[in-house]
Amino acid sequence: MSGKLPAVTLVLGGARSGKSAFAERLVEAASPMRFYLATGQAWDEEMRARISTHQDRRGAGWETVEAPVELAEALADAARADRPVLVDCLTLWVTNLMLGEHDIDAAFERLAKTLPGLKGPVVFVSNEVGLGIVPDNAMARAFRDHAGRLHQTIAGLADEVHFVAAGLPLKMKG
Amino acid sequence: MSGKLPAVTLVLGGARSGKSAFAERLVEAASPMRFYLATGQAWDEEMRARISTHQDRRGAGWETVEAPVELAEALADAARADRPVLVDCLTLWVTNLMLGEHDIDAAFERLAKTLPGLKGPVVFVSNEVGLGIVPDNAMARAFRDHAGRLHQTIAGLADEVHFVAAGLPLKMKG
Amino acid sequence: MSGKLPAVTLVLGGARSGKSAFAERLVEAASPMRFYLATGQAWDEEMRARISTHQDRRGAGWETVEAPVELAEALADAARADRPVLVDCLTLWVTNLMLGEHDIDAAFERLAKTLPGLKGPVVFVSNEVGLGIVPDNAMARAFRDHAGRLHQTIAGLADEVHFVAAGLPLKMKG
Repeated sequence: MSGKLPAVTLVLGGARSGKSAFAERLVEAASPMRFYLATGQAWDEEMRARISTHQDRRGAGWETVEAPVELAEALADAARADRPVLVDCLTLWVTNLMLGEHDIDAAFERLAKTLPGLKGPVVFVSNEVGLGIVPDNAMARAFRDHAGRLHQTIAGLADEVHFVAAGLPLKMKG
Repeated sequence: MSGKLPAVTLVLGGARSGKSAFAERLVEAASPMRFYLATGQAWDEEMRARISTHQDRRGAGWETVEAPVELAEALADAARADRPVLVDCLTLWVTNLMLGEHDIDAAFERLAKTLPGLKGPVVFVSNEVGLGIVPDNAMARAFRDHAGRLHQTIAGLADEVHFVAAGLPLKMKG
Repeated sequence: MSGKLPAVTLVLGGARSGKSAFAERLVEAASPMRFYLATGQAWDEEMRARISTHQDRRGAGWETVEAPVELAEALADAARADRPVLVDCLTLWVTNLMLGEHDIDAAFERLAKTLPGLKGPVVFVSNEVGLGIVPDNAMARAFRDHAGRLHQTIAGLADEVHFVAAGLPLKMKG
């Protein structure tokens, strides 16, 4: 049913690069029924507007599950159903882990360990954030370090990795 | 006369990536006579120095037209002459639209509608700005959202898209 | 002995992109004995931790030389031994040149002139820093201008250029 998608795909891109839309098309082409694992939390008006824009674009056939922190667990649950899962996005998850003062390394390890046992394919979306000037504040530097390490881990486990800019995908692996 | 260039080309790159020089070489190879649509305004000394550096590098055969805001109109005018047009750059145009409090969506739509009717080829240069940490201030976040949306639109209409880093082009479309 | 490596290689990437590890693997595959030219200076605890992480990852067979400022001279010395040299990284060198108020253009020129005469192959690692929002402060803008110009120069002289994201290399030249 979802034979067109490999087990694990990572879609990396910048802000407003079209990475989410590209990832959604990948998952939609694979199956009429799919899970959307949303890591974003609507803590202010701007964030609510972004989430709403993304929801409007996605059509029918999506079941949304909020997974701001317990991502490995939500993923294991969702993938049990043999439907493709879209996780959007890893960088918001890292933000939530940091704000909630969770153990980042343990959370990354749990996620990595979950991947090989999943039944349905999973597509991760994430923001590449490490290509600008070194940020002034230590929190932002820690954030981009965490995000970078996570991207390396997921890319290492992924069958396909795409880098998206201006809506155009560039295949980096697979 | 300008047969080597497709109708619409987008050259994306970072700061000091060599994107303008690459775009200029594309246009220079296509025709001995060409238009340079400059969106930059010399509002301070640093900007004046940058504009002057770019002008010094461009040799003869360029007719410069300043188009800080009315880009669609200037482009339609320039392309009437059947000479290739270089637009440098879209991100400065977005900055000017924001600072002048223009209707951004309407301006983007006018530009997109102008493209199919142009007689001569056009090459757009723009800065990719979405690959760093989320900026602290809302204006900068709005700017990179606008720039990202515009890049997706122009890339969608373009025949060729190049991403330039360290002076080296990577073809993403075409 | 180091026949697998061309004379000059540039490895560009973002923060925590895996660029150093990729470059180390290139050099390690080329020779059992190699030089590590470290431009980083441990001026605070965070920097000490980063340097220590990098050192722990590198195994035996590396001779470390600190070259925070006199990079061209250190490179000429190291390459005399017919072993591959890893320079990590150019952006920290640019930072040191700026903080020490050295003549940047002269330093870049000395480095560029050193390259054609080297006996052993050299691999440069550097951070791409120009793909985020224009920084607020003039020092950071000058830094990314210098880094961008240096990348163009080294990429122009290099036989191979790789862009690394999420641990995955993308060959841009060679």
